[in-house]
Amino acid sequence: MLKRISLYLLITLILAFLISETPTYSNAEQPFRLAIHGGAGVILRENLSAEDEKAYHEKLSEALQAGHQVLKNGGKSLDAVETAIKILEDSPLFNAGKGAVFTSEGTIELDAAIMDGASLAAGSVAGTKHIKNPISLARMVMEKSPHVMMVGNGAEKFAQKQGMTLVDQKYFFTKRRFEQLQKEKAKESKKTSFLKTQLHDENKFGTVGAVALDKIGNLAAGTSTGGTTNKKFGRVGDAPIIGAGTYANNQTCAVSATGHGEYFIRAVVAYDISALMQYQKLSLKDASDKVVMDKLVKFGGAGGVICIDKDGNIAMPFNTPGMYRGSIDENGKITTSIFR
Amino acid sequence: MLKRISLYLLITLILAFLISETPTYSNAEQPFRLAIHGGAGVILRENLSAEDEKAYHEKLSEALQAGHQVLKNGGKSLDAVETAIKILEDSPLFNAGKGAVFTSEGTIELDAAIMDGASLAAGSVAGTKHIKNPISLARMVMEKSPHVMMVGNGAEKFAQKQGMTLVDQKYFFTKRRFEQLQKEKAKESKKTSFLKTQLHDENKFGTVGAVALDKIGNLAAGTSTGGTTNKKFGRVGDAPIIGAGTYANNQTCAVSATGHGEYFIRAVVAYDISALMQYQKLSLKDASDKVVMDKLVKFGGAGGVICIDKDGNIAMPFNTPGMYRGSIDENGKITTSIFR
Repeated sequence: MLKRISLYLLITLILAFLISETPTYSNAEQPFRLAIHGGAGVILRENLSAEDEKAYHEKLSEALQAGHQVLKNGGKSLDAVETAIKILEDSPLFNAGKGAVFTSEGTIELDAAIMDGASLAAGSVAGTKHIKNPISLARMVMEKSPHVMMVGNGAEKFAQKQGMTLVDQKYFFTKRRFEQLQKEKAKESKKTSFLKTQLHDENKFGTVGAVALDKIGNLAAGTSTGGTTNKKFGRVGDAPIIGAGTYANNQTCAVSATGHGEYFIRAVVAYDISALMQYQKLSLKDASDKVVMDKLVKFGGAGGVICIDKDGNIAMPFNTPGMYRGSIDENGKITTSIFR
Repeated sequence: MLKRISLYLLITLILAFLISETPTYSNAEQPFRLAIHGGAGVILRENLSAEDEKAYHEKLSEALQAGHQVLKNGGKSLDAVETAIKILEDSPLFNAGKGAVFTSEGTIELDAAIMDGASLAAGSVAGTKHIKNPISLARMVMEKSPHVMMVGNGAEKFAQKQGMTLVDQKYFFTKRRFEQLQKEKAKESKKTSFLKTQLHDENKFGTVGAVALDKIGNLAAGTSTGGTTNKKFGRVGDAPIIGAGTYANNQTCAVSATGHGEYFIRAVVAYDISALMQYQKLSLKDASDKVVMDKLVKFGGAGGVICIDKDGNIAMPFNTPGMYRGSIDENGKITTSIFR
């Protein structure tokens, strides 16, 4: 009798092993991982002092460690994404939250989005001027309203109604970004056409973002940005556009993009990576390479993405000289990079 | 000698016939077609008087004929889309331009987007309050700026800079929409939670849109909307989101959507139809049915789309009781419908 039960068990185990599509993990091995970026662009080693380079690596590590703690403690991928992005928003090093670039009117206008791969719930805000952490407001839109996207004053009224304290524009001010605006304005006065404005240098775009896989297998993605230096006319880029700069779906992957937003919107970058995985059965690496290193390059769209799939694979392709980026695995192993 | 040339010609013709993937047309047969919608929702025959029904059919026909004239005269699909949508925007019958629904603050806030399938150029505006024809401003953003999306006051400043005359909010006022707002507000006062607000009745959403294929084979799509009655906090729906409510790509199709925008954004509806055609080689009909009648239904997203492919096939699936819709072919043959 015991022999027969053992035989059944053995057969069951062998079958389970054979039909499992993905590697199985014991609790200790279940991957929970986080990847972040701090923007892609013309980031050249010769323009970055050793001191600055160190500061970027340190801040990326700090954000990764904070997100990792959330995941390690059994927190949601959404929480890890929000936690990591808040640290990048609060740092003057990146173009999001404090340290964001100036609009042509000398104001700061911030956009952000977050998406839950489990439910496909999403929240997004654009053109906010007094929100310290736009990623947290995007999450509130997702969780505390029936809407996905809110813009301008309306989004801030919602924030107040939810008890969020607004901050003065002065909070976001950094001397470095103010000087960048003056430079752009000086360059602009020599230009003849608004239509032909180019956005190809590092000063002009930048974003922060995070993607995560938690212990129970849920994916999440988030992105936050100040947009482009000297931006005009209420311009909105790809960061707050679900499917363009931000997308997450447990069936495929979570993606956060950074780059020339206009191209990323028109190429529906984040969802395209997901669609290639779902419909053409490409791997995360092949799908993200196809979109960033092939389709976007032919299209003329400079930038990169970070993405993670349901098995914890991470890909971070970019077609610019540099992208501030990093990842952390379930063992707490951190990698951060800036250049190729 | 003449015999040999004839033989070559014959062989060439047979080969050309055999390798042509799509039917070939003489100039007279080259299809140029246009489809439009005036919104999907709970449109019930018992709630629509014979007089109103007639008015809808007549206005849809007028828009189709105007767009058809553009195409017939060799105009671009973009021009046909803009022309048809302007007529729907100018009519008080539809929730776009004049006759748009009111926000909770008693204002009118309009969104629109347009996309060129040939170049993947796109333009989009959201939260405009003084633009008579938002579809034309979206086109200006596409053609006269380096950006894709502009929101709020910024978009209006751009309009003025381009020489567009702004109109007073009074222009958009209709008694019918004002009464709808009062009804919504009365209902709202009985509700307990903003989060649980439902948007399932016809009064609450509506959109207009057009898709076209022109004589030289270029596709275009456009969408324009007032959003949802009693909308709050700068809410933006799917209409101005490239990939969600509006998308066009000569390789696949042009799509304009109408429905519960939050679901359409999260499902990246318009681009998903294109991706299914490109990556899974589905026909336009199968791809749009899959997204609207299967994926969106399971997801809980009420609404529909109109779409056209590069061969001039048109599909108009909707999962609601009704959708104001119509199409016109190269011979000027018009079909308009409201119910199933």
